[in-house]
Amino acid sequence: MKVGIIGASGYGGLELIRLLHNHPEIEKIDLFTSSEVGTIFSEKYPHLVNIHDQPMHEIAQDHISKLDTVFFSTPAGVTTSLLPPLVGAGPKLIDLAGDFRLKDPALYEQWYQKDAPANEFLEKSVYGLPEWNKKAIQEAEFIANPGCYPTAVLLSLLPLLKNKLIDGSQLVIDAKSGVSGAGNKPSQATHFSETNENFSIYKIHQHQHIPEIEQAMNLFADQPDPITFTTHLVPMTRGIMATSYAKVNGQVTEQQLVDCLKETYENHPFVRVLTDIQKIGTKQVYGSNYCDIHVKVDPRTNRATIISVIDNVVKGAAGQAIQNMNIQYGLDETTGIANIPLFI
Amino acid sequence: MKVGIIGASGYGGLELIRLLHNHPEIEKIDLFTSSEVGTIFSEKYPHLVNIHDQPMHEIAQDHISKLDTVFFSTPAGVTTSLLPPLVGAGPKLIDLAGDFRLKDPALYEQWYQKDAPANEFLEKSVYGLPEWNKKAIQEAEFIANPGCYPTAVLLSLLPLLKNKLIDGSQLVIDAKSGVSGAGNKPSQATHFSETNENFSIYKIHQHQHIPEIEQAMNLFADQPDPITFTTHLVPMTRGIMATSYAKVNGQVTEQQLVDCLKETYENHPFVRVLTDIQKIGTKQVYGSNYCDIHVKVDPRTNRATIISVIDNVVKGAAGQAIQNMNIQYGLDETTGIANIPLFI
Amino acid sequence: MKVGIIGASGYGGLELIRLLHNHPEIEKIDLFTSSEVGTIFSEKYPHLVNIHDQPMHEIAQDHISKLDTVFFSTPAGVTTSLLPPLVGAGPKLIDLAGDFRLKDPALYEQWYQKDAPANEFLEKSVYGLPEWNKKAIQEAEFIANPGCYPTAVLLSLLPLLKNKLIDGSQLVIDAKSGVSGAGNKPSQATHFSETNENFSIYKIHQHQHIPEIEQAMNLFADQPDPITFTTHLVPMTRGIMATSYAKVNGQVTEQQLVDCLKETYENHPFVRVLTDIQKIGTKQVYGSNYCDIHVKVDPRTNRATIISVIDNVVKGAAGQAIQNMNIQYGLDETTGIANIPLFI
Amino acid sequence: MKVGIIGASGYGGLELIRLLHNHPEIEKIDLFTSSEVGTIFSEKYPHLVNIHDQPMHEIAQDHISKLDTVFFSTPAGVTTSLLPPLVGAGPKLIDLAGDFRLKDPALYEQWYQKDAPANEFLEKSVYGLPEWNKKAIQEAEFIANPGCYPTAVLLSLLPLLKNKLIDGSQLVIDAKSGVSGAGNKPSQATHFSETNENFSIYKIHQHQHIPEIEQAMNLFADQPDPITFTTHLVPMTRGIMATSYAKVNGQVTEQQLVDCLKETYENHPFVRVLTDIQKIGTKQVYGSNYCDIHVKVDPRTNRATIISVIDNVVKGAAGQAIQNMNIQYGLDETTGIANIPLFI
Repeated sequence: MKVGIIGASGYGGLELIRLLHNHPEIEKIDLFTSSEVGTIFSEKYPHLVNIHDQPMHEIAQDHISKLDTVFFSTPAGVTTSLLPPLVGAGPKLIDLAGDFRLKDPALYEQWYQKDAPANEFLEKSVYGLPEWNKKAIQEAEFIANPGCYPTAVLLSLLPLLKNKLIDGSQLVIDAKSGVSGAGNKPSQATHFSETNENFSIYKIHQHQHIPEIEQAMNLFADQPDPITFTTHLVPMTRGIMATSYAKVNGQVTEQQLVDCLKETYENHPFVRVLTDIQKIGTKQVYGSNYCDIHVKVDPRTNRATIISVIDNVVKGAAGQAIQNMNIQYGLDETTGIANIPLFI
Repeated sequence: MKVGIIGASGYGGLELIRLLHNHPEIEKIDLFTSSEVGTIFSEKYPHLVNIHDQPMHEIAQDHISKLDTVFFSTPAGVTTSLLPPLVGAGPKLIDLAGDFRLKDPALYEQWYQKDAPANEFLEKSVYGLPEWNKKAIQEAEFIANPGCYPTAVLLSLLPLLKNKLIDGSQLVIDAKSGVSGAGNKPSQATHFSETNENFSIYKIHQHQHIPEIEQAMNLFADQPDPITFTTHLVPMTRGIMATSYAKVNGQVTEQQLVDCLKETYENHPFVRVLTDIQKIGTKQVYGSNYCDIHVKVDPRTNRATIISVIDNVVKGAAGQAIQNMNIQYGLDETTGIANIPLFI
Repeated sequence: MKVGIIGASGYGGLELIRLLHNHPEIEKIDLFTSSEVGTIFSEKYPHLVNIHDQPMHEIAQDHISKLDTVFFSTPAGVTTSLLPPLVGAGPKLIDLAGDFRLKDPALYEQWYQKDAPANEFLEKSVYGLPEWNKKAIQEAEFIANPGCYPTAVLLSLLPLLKNKLIDGSQLVIDAKSGVSGAGNKPSQATHFSETNENFSIYKIHQHQHIPEIEQAMNLFADQPDPITFTTHLVPMTRGIMATSYAKVNGQVTEQQLVDCLKETYENHPFVRVLTDIQKIGTKQVYGSNYCDIHVKVDPRTNRATIISVIDNVVKGAAGQAIQNMNIQYGLDETTGIANIPLFI
Repeated sequence: MKVGIIGASGYGGLELIRLLHNHPEIEKIDLFTSSEVGTIFSEKYPHLVNIHDQPMHEIAQDHISKLDTVFFSTPAGVTTSLLPPLVGAGPKLIDLAGDFRLKDPALYEQWYQKDAPANEFLEKSVYGLPEWNKKAIQEAEFIANPGCYPTAVLLSLLPLLKNKLIDGSQLVIDAKSGVSGAGNKPSQATHFSETNENFSIYKIHQHQHIPEIEQAMNLFADQPDPITFTTHLVPMTRGIMATSYAKVNGQVTEQQLVDCLKETYENHPFVRVLTDIQKIGTKQVYGSNYCDIHVKVDPRTNRATIISVIDNVVKGAAGQAIQNMNIQYGLDETTGIANIPLFI
């Protein structure tokens, strides 16, 4: 297979290169850019010397149409203008940005403060959460890869909501992310001296992933209520933890929650339900496509605390995109992304 | 004033030395130890060369009784055995451990898994949260200095609970701490290679600060319900953020919450209510005795998110202890602890 | 005393505010800016709410001339244009930038790639290394505050060079700095995700502090030879370590080196010569004005390894500037900057 | 191939598991322990749930003799007692500890302060630096895998020394390592709160890797002189940088040094000679088996600064061990270890 990456300089793009490079079915990776045509990629990123020394190409339809799959790793908004002309042009498309995730254009415009893509493209896009939408992904030509926070939140909560074990009307989700989630563009918010040794909160109630989570909860678990969702910045590069709080319904026990999660993900190799551990952390999935989930019920308040961790750059972006590609091509889901976490 | 510190090798003790050293009313600081009598303190901690080159003393009643104030910075359980003989022996006592905070010995034994101190001492101890208990502190001979998490949580929630602006029956408190909160004793949980670049959750629903928070909410704000409380470990040394979630009562607005907080802390120099900022982080109070509070209401869910940050070693331990000492002696509360945060 | 800071938004400026705020002789701190006149400083830096809520002023001669001391914390080049009109206008001037440190304008232009200031101003400036130039500082109207690396290097090597205990003709200096040395302006080189968990080397043989170190070695220790000097970036915010390597002369012993250092700094409160410790680190001086020095001789190679650590923002910038101000005004050198390191 | 790891709980062992798991020729990995027989490995290390859920085995000769290769990832000293009985018992042996690297037992005892292994075993061991000792490795039954620092130092300096381009009699090597080099056992020196935001120096002139480097310089490059070598601890988990300083011989130019390095490593896939970059850092090789080398000559001093970076856990330990195993079995050197660095 020959694949292309548009926007390879971003962190999603870099991680696609890292993972695709060792994917046994990938024969060639072409990088495309609108602003740096001709630049040798390894001159920009010396960690890729001897690995990817080719120049970046211009985004030309005739070149791209010969590829099997094209990944978009461009910022929100940019995808809306670059992607549509390529729909139906040949290659399967996987978009890592947020532009095509929300089916309702009004919602997109409200939360992203940008013009939404045309309806015809929104309709064609398939939400690429493999553990919940595999059938549609198998047949999709155009996939909207989920956001990093939604991936962590949905994998842990959808089973419990769908099975009516927890009360979806009072969800509180406290999410934390490493700094790579902010991308590769320098800013005061990601300046080392102000970010290091600093745990901060941002976009309180205002993160654009909120409508994406709500749309998926509605679609996959019939949960229509709004969520309370906040996001924090952790002084580390990779990793997301979502700590979610919900009342359990009726007499539901911790064991029932665990069983529900285990049954749901029995045949899903990337989701691990952990029990009997005192501590769960983002490093358990560092560099890998795993999502680890843990749940505890507080008998004093009858509230469940549900924890999930992912590597935001892998399962929250590039790894999940490749998982989707694997499914589209009928390959084993884990092909090329079965690497083990770097715990240390 | 002459002061003593028992358990100076711990991080609470080190921070007491740092702050007391520049306190204008302190003339002498004696360090006491049960296990390292005679050790020159600056040989153990070379950052104190030329600053504290005296040996550590044995815990002798005649020596201690000549001091004005004695701080206990010993682990939970140790204080229970060391402190009682000194009550009434002369110096005022300030305990930074948790042993004398819970008035109900059964609760202590349940949450700490240790024998509680005798009732007579529990009765004598005064909970040292200056912004809420100043009168009692002024007259106290024996102060139980609050825990780090309770300080952050209570300062931000007590005003809103007391004024019935938020619903205390559904509180969710998601707390995050730097690693110094775990103390100076090495363990796997604080081993650099496994802690760095790792955000983890621990003691889910089981932290011993839960009953302390509930006791104070009951006492100061007439809020009797149990809380949902979890604690996370952030890969940084200092700092606590508590992110709390509560339904607002009736038609209460964000502005009312802000006003309530501002009015409550109008004359309290260490509590700052911040508005109109996009990002709030622990580094804003690094190394200082400040507690910064921020509140936002989500109109979609009618839920308030209340954020507070402190330096766990200062306002969450040594700084607050000195604030209590200042109040006991009728000094200005800020004496010796008015230093500015190290933002970078 | 009334002081002003030009360029307060930078890290040198922020640290001046932090330290001057608790300086007992400072009654007022005015902040000046060319680009943000009128901005309330604490709105830009919320850690200063309730501490410095005044607006920034325009750089007006009549305002500035009423002050006692003005600190320049502006980037190299900017000082050259802003400072000269204020020489002789009333206040004493202390420049934290590099513009006036090199007496030879050709050298400045070669290493800084900018136009040098006029000779008359270069001649008036006094190099503000208090431990070596106190007499000149006492009478100076205009001080060029040393660079961060030169401070660490010179304090540790000058005594040994001056006393001909080590061979100055073969010096190798391997310097390492925290990221705050790069200032507050975001860039790829200081972007958290690429800086964290990354130890890098930069400006090999090309750092502009090289001629400053050589000029001072020549002046204070009669050592005329060029040095080999490289700089590394450490994934931490504050701190510099300089590890220097030199052949010892003749039969000189480790003890002689230690004695020389101890004698040199006997009456200098901010320099500590440490012996008998296994490990020396930047955190031993974190947030303080100390410079710690350690020396070991390798009998196998007859070479001395000389280590010095400082907090680059304090002794390497703002703290040293205040030390200079204290000396200019006949105050005790340590006034306002005697705070203890934050070891944790 | 079936392989075994003795001492799998250590960081070398964990990394062997991570890399071997994706090695296409490895069919089975058995873990052995002397102290935790029967413990399910993934219960100890939850990041390996679903990946390695087998129990650890006791170190039984009959079990081990059926394996193809056995890796020792035990502490120095332990290997000396565990390994000898297995020599000749069937499997090829690769020792990641230092016990069998020094051919001279007296040297081992002097630097390690432990009893040296018997001469017969020292004689059988082959130093596993593949780029310099491939022939011997191909035929070896028992490999002493190089230390982390020696790997970084030797790869960068051996070509220049062997070709007499630099003066080996005045070498200064300033080495820096992430904290994982200290292993998985908690101690004050690796306690997060004291290690984070702290750059420190340790074992000045006393590191046990000194004689290993000198032995190899003598053997492979005919350089007999002692080196000056110091080691620093960087607040990060993985990565080593060695910055080496040497006078260039005669009229040797920077280009000659670069050419020599490029020619030496032309056919060695894991060594990259980088030119024309402003910054070189450990993250360029993070998680990979690469060693990046950079050299600059300072015309002012006629001294070369030679920089090399490796991931201490990969090329400095487990990755190099697998590279050796590949060579022993006639596989392509890069089999299973061709993964790309995680730059972010």
